[in-house]
Amino acid sequence: MQITAAYTDLYQLTMAQVYFRTKPSGRAVFDYYYRNNPFNGGYSIFTGLEDVLDILETLKFSVSDIAYLEQHGFEKDFLDYLRDFRFRGAIYSCKEGDVVFPNRPILQVEANIIEAQIIETFLLNMLNFQTLIATKASRIRYSAKKEILLDMGLRRAHATGGYYASRAAAIGGFDGTSNVKAAEDYNIPCSGTMAHSFIQSYEDELQAFRDFAKWRPKNCVLLVDTFNTLKSGLPNAMIVAKEMEKKGEQLLGVRLDSGDLAYLSKKTRRMLDDANLDYVKIVVSNQLDEYVIKSLKEQGAPIDIFGVGTNLVTGKPDASLGGVYKLSEYNGEPRIKLSEDIIKVSLPYKKQVYRMLDENGMFYGADAVALFKEEKVTEMEHAFDANKSLNLSRFTHEPLLEKVMEHGKKVNSPRSVTEIASYSQSRLEKLPDEYKRFQNPHIYKIGLSTKLKQERDKLVQKHKF
Amino acid sequence: MQITAAYTDLYQLTMAQVYFRTKPSGRAVFDYYYRNNPFNGGYSIFTGLEDVLDILETLKFSVSDIAYLEQHGFEKDFLDYLRDFRFRGAIYSCKEGDVVFPNRPILQVEANIIEAQIIETFLLNMLNFQTLIATKASRIRYSAKKEILLDMGLRRAHATGGYYASRAAAIGGFDGTSNVKAAEDYNIPCSGTMAHSFIQSYEDELQAFRDFAKWRPKNCVLLVDTFNTLKSGLPNAMIVAKEMEKKGEQLLGVRLDSGDLAYLSKKTRRMLDDANLDYVKIVVSNQLDEYVIKSLKEQGAPIDIFGVGTNLVTGKPDASLGGVYKLSEYNGEPRIKLSEDIIKVSLPYKKQVYRMLDENGMFYGADAVALFKEEKVTEMEHAFDANKSLNLSRFTHEPLLEKVMEHGKKVNSPRSVTEIASYSQSRLEKLPDEYKRFQNPHIYKIGLSTKLKQERDKLVQKHKF
Repeated sequence: MQITAAYTDLYQLTMAQVYFRTKPSGRAVFDYYYRNNPFNGGYSIFTGLEDVLDILETLKFSVSDIAYLEQHGFEKDFLDYLRDFRFRGAIYSCKEGDVVFPNRPILQVEANIIEAQIIETFLLNMLNFQTLIATKASRIRYSAKKEILLDMGLRRAHATGGYYASRAAAIGGFDGTSNVKAAEDYNIPCSGTMAHSFIQSYEDELQAFRDFAKWRPKNCVLLVDTFNTLKSGLPNAMIVAKEMEKKGEQLLGVRLDSGDLAYLSKKTRRMLDDANLDYVKIVVSNQLDEYVIKSLKEQGAPIDIFGVGTNLVTGKPDASLGGVYKLSEYNGEPRIKLSEDIIKVSLPYKKQVYRMLDENGMFYGADAVALFKEEKVTEMEHAFDANKSLNLSRFTHEPLLEKVMEHGKKVNSPRSVTEIASYSQSRLEKLPDEYKRFQNPHIYKIGLSTKLKQERDKLVQKHKF
Repeated sequence: MQITAAYTDLYQLTMAQVYFRTKPSGRAVFDYYYRNNPFNGGYSIFTGLEDVLDILETLKFSVSDIAYLEQHGFEKDFLDYLRDFRFRGAIYSCKEGDVVFPNRPILQVEANIIEAQIIETFLLNMLNFQTLIATKASRIRYSAKKEILLDMGLRRAHATGGYYASRAAAIGGFDGTSNVKAAEDYNIPCSGTMAHSFIQSYEDELQAFRDFAKWRPKNCVLLVDTFNTLKSGLPNAMIVAKEMEKKGEQLLGVRLDSGDLAYLSKKTRRMLDDANLDYVKIVVSNQLDEYVIKSLKEQGAPIDIFGVGTNLVTGKPDASLGGVYKLSEYNGEPRIKLSEDIIKVSLPYKKQVYRMLDENGMFYGADAVALFKEEKVTEMEHAFDANKSLNLSRFTHEPLLEKVMEHGKKVNSPRSVTEIASYSQSRLEKLPDEYKRFQNPHIYKIGLSTKLKQERDKLVQKHKF
């Protein structure tokens, strides 16, 4: 499957046909944001932007898309429009990899309303998922501290979504992936050695290890739990390690893929060290996530490399980020979506978001949302509680939304996954630890400028029943 | 991203290079199966097979894949082999859409070990995900009974995995999808009307509804919760419905996307009926799943169409199916993988699975796993409990695994999603209700033929420590 402009919800096209008849040159601003941090955490890592921009630059309907839509009742002149469809709008966005928070725009699309609507589904599909996975990865990184993290999740990923999962994992802090295709396209370090089947294909485990080490001495990791970790796999791996030494080679590691990983890793470390194999690393895998890794570290498990699969690439337990795309401005006029639930009321107008930095350049814990053209924001108000406000004059104001696409073309040169990952890391370092902890993390304040709040309240009044 | 043979884990290729040196013509049998039913349910719907076979028929490494692997240390003669790589093996499988159960082969690959290994990741990636989603869909169908079910999940799906989610949802019992691309390629009914943004782009809701109905009178569904469902959206929709009547048209429905759907749907039905608009259907959406729909039905909510998104396409709360791929035979010899956990011990040899049908053609609740060449299986034994067995002589034995690929080519003509969905439905009808209920479903028995059990136990003894 190739992503074409038909990678969208049908309602975008039924609406588009009506816009085409009634307001073909309407100009819209849409906000992309989400309402709750995933994993009950304190932040998200905004991810997927480069992919979105790359694809948008060339997005169009294929010949067969048009033929399909013709069969399904769309009209001839509208199909002619779709045949020439390109996204020609502007996009303002946070930098990919930045630390972001709920209920404030992360990205804004400013475009003809038909174009803005047709790209909505693709944009949400890509940003919601990659942001979810990068956030999960950054939590796992937080637990694993300096140890090596490898993504091994492709087999349990959501079909080809696994390709983007590996990219997002790298941005969130993983060192490498088993996913060859993603590694190739995104230039992510790739790693992998052997499965149980390799050992099973031999009459005995020792011979399997010998053959593997003979033909793949570099980065050789032996999987030791096919029959019995401590009584068979590890002793056999140690025999091979000693044989490698005689050839001037070194066994890189042994992998534990089942059983009690804390117990087994300690026992394994001791057996290796007692045999002067202290350089052999211990790799573990098997249903790891940020909590299991945290617990293993707390138990002092001497693990060097963690392979993480299912829980990473599926973003368990959340499995989705509820990012939305709301119309905030139409032909220069403010727009709002009401809700019984006050927190779901959207913010009108094109906006800018300012991050407050303290005197050390650290994130103070407050992002202020303002009208795009406001000169100076000296005070931010709580979105709903009239008694709460924060004076902003003592902080450095960092504007977060920058133009990344204009007339359908990217404004900046491409950023590699490595660059984005390292930017993300540098941003996370500015976020105090209280926002990173897993249990009841501190809540990052999102406030509104006085003007924005007034405009929103006026619109709420206007549409009140 | 196009799926090529590099859509795999690196370890498949590192193992493959060693096989290439040491046993290039080894013949392997691998079993695909999973260990636990998803969603604490009583069954799964096996899905994804046609996609797997279609892609396998032409799967190869691209020029850039080979260049990438060359840079990453693979050797010249092995790269020459990869350049010519095709899957040339055989596949035995349950029919796509069949009802399947844990711990028995659903599919077996019989091929050169290098080929079987290279395709593993792709095969697991595709079958695990689609089986998860089709199973979720079938549970939602079970709750919704005869009402219409629409998949609207693309924006929350795992990137391009959403394409396959829509296919799997249709096989599991959904009537249509909002996903244009999947609808086009898989010939699934496509549906969709309007979003909140459409209404927001107008100065007032009534005008938005009028324009929409004017330009899209067929299948017109109006979204009524942008400002206030009962005080604004519904009254405006009713005005438009009456205007449509005068033109000889009919409003198809109104959609509720927030609030208490039981309360609002009842109130809406009454208001519509009181205005002689009894033909206008009620569509609901907003975080639905099998439990919410069950509850709505139990409350007598008069809902005609359910739109389901996130929970369907991400397979919440499980988010993954833990299907595995285990070597069971190598060059005609049995192979086994042991585990501390007895249930994880694999089954040796190429096998056949027989489903027991009772005198009415219903599934009796027992599948017997036997050696592939066993003539007659008269008794099945519990896999681990020596005191449990079942005499099979009174049942009709239905063999479930059939050859679907030979020498890398599909044996059967392609089956459409519609055909597979209707086959799946017919199979589910043979499964007694006790296995379908959500709370503690009855456990479908999986037994082993006496010969298979003996062979497995012999191997366990051989590898015991």
